[in-house]
Amino acid sequence: MCSVLTRVRPIHRAVALTLRLGANTEGSSYVATQRKRFSPGVSSAAANGRFYCSRAAKTEGLLFRQLFEVESCTYTYLLADTNTKEAIIIDPVLETMDRDLTLVKELGLNLIFAVNTHCHADHITSSGLMKKRIAGLKSAISKHSGASADILLSEGDRIPFGKHYLIVKETPGHTDGCTTLVSGDESMAFTGDALLIRGCGRTDFQQGCAKCLYDSVHDKIFTLPDDCLVYPAHDYIGQTVSTVGEERKFNPRLTKSKDEFVDIMNSLNLPKPDKIDISVPANLVCGLHGL
Amino acid sequence: MCSVLTRVRPIHRAVALTLRLGANTEGSSYVATQRKRFSPGVSSAAANGRFYCSRAAKTEGLLFRQLFEVESCTYTYLLADTNTKEAIIIDPVLETMDRDLTLVKELGLNLIFAVNTHCHADHITSSGLMKKRIAGLKSAISKHSGASADILLSEGDRIPFGKHYLIVKETPGHTDGCTTLVSGDESMAFTGDALLIRGCGRTDFQQGCAKCLYDSVHDKIFTLPDDCLVYPAHDYIGQTVSTVGEERKFNPRLTKSKDEFVDIMNSLNLPKPDKIDISVPANLVCGLHGL
Repeated sequence: MCSVLTRVRPIHRAVALTLRLGANTEGSSYVATQRKRFSPGVSSAAANGRFYCSRAAKTEGLLFRQLFEVESCTYTYLLADTNTKEAIIIDPVLETMDRDLTLVKELGLNLIFAVNTHCHADHITSSGLMKKRIAGLKSAISKHSGASADILLSEGDRIPFGKHYLIVKETPGHTDGCTTLVSGDESMAFTGDALLIRGCGRTDFQQGCAKCLYDSVHDKIFTLPDDCLVYPAHDYIGQTVSTVGEERKFNPRLTKSKDEFVDIMNSLNLPKPDKIDISVPANLVCGLHGL
Repeated sequence: MCSVLTRVRPIHRAVALTLRLGANTEGSSYVATQRKRFSPGVSSAAANGRFYCSRAAKTEGLLFRQLFEVESCTYTYLLADTNTKEAIIIDPVLETMDRDLTLVKELGLNLIFAVNTHCHADHITSSGLMKKRIAGLKSAISKHSGASADILLSEGDRIPFGKHYLIVKETPGHTDGCTTLVSGDESMAFTGDALLIRGCGRTDFQQGCAKCLYDSVHDKIFTLPDDCLVYPAHDYIGQTVSTVGEERKFNPRLTKSKDEFVDIMNSLNLPKPDKIDISVPANLVCGLHGL
């Protein structure tokens, strides 16, 4: 397990990957089309286990903020060490960058990493432009994403900020470069589009693979503690958080067998996301504002 | 300080109050019109105090969920005792009632109180219809709101759920019946429209009073601990939480003198909220679905 600080390796290969990805579509808009649907009823009698105990993160000395971008229904997360003030931001969105930087400034934080959980197709990341505003800020994304960044992440990497850190878990399936970022004490998991609250990202573009997604969630996320809080990259009906235990019990797709899950995912016939043709090329280079 | 359980007194006076309120307008839409504006720059050097330390509530044995209704940008809060499973819901919205009740059922909660922080003008509460779905559920609102409910709340009342409770603080100014609900350990304050994140509710209708609001916030909310989390009834730019310390430092209105604040509030010239003519009459009787 190596620190990402030792692994700075910017790579430019946007053009080839834009061609490779251009014909595909983004996952999370599926859920947008399902905004009014709710997960199927599951007996409340099942809700008596440890996963029931849910509250927001309680890690000592951790500042935590969840922020929302309304057009793409994206959650951005800001985490900081309250002593050293070193901070990271996860999945920042171009349209809300000023809001985020105002907060960073007000709180006196030193933003050191802007991490994307994957190469988004529904919005443009602000990580590139944010780097132009904050000296020393490094962008990071999975090495399997095809995107450029200062730091290309691999399984087991640590993303440190002060005394805290996130551990990178590779959770492909929605895209081949999806990661889940887990806090060192396993109290929080930032699941990107791999696992949504009572849902998951689509698997029909950007090297999506339903079988891979099923294995990723079951092997890398559902093995976390029941009361580990699940913070996804999106929610379309106003839910802000779930837990591993809840999703293991109530996720309408991922509680199925792998074969059933694959059938569900292969039968979605979803429309192409509105912004994919501008978002994916931009996000391959940190939002078209440089790395 | 009396328990609200001893103070059940439903009152019907919707017609007279509808007439009284009909010509007024709702406060929170001000912030909607300001959606793209950010709070004025404040030196980050000020951000080194105790208020800096912010994370979501960590009260032992407390289940906490923040939920969002996108049309009116309303936050609904679900709190429960993880042992007894007694739960309360704050400011539930009619459009998202099914989502909320699905979650209550999945988590195996026993919802005992539906509390409104005030008589909303921008959305219809689901508390009345929710009472028809859940046996034993009691609605609650300030006795000064003019609205009917099973329980009319007064300063210092406790709203208990299991071993936890919220304390009622009367914080008039946006309306004359606004309350702030503070957790027993003062780690969380549900401020309704009295105090928003870097903002506040308007004061030009429903017996609004800028001087009263200034006093309410300074006397009842800004006297809470710096790291007390501020959970408002609305946010229009995707912020989910603040702290008392942050608002005391960075709120662009409430950091001013009272005279300056009154001038600001009296110069807003806000348009009438879209839904006031249907929301206020409905909310005076728990959402037109009975008490």
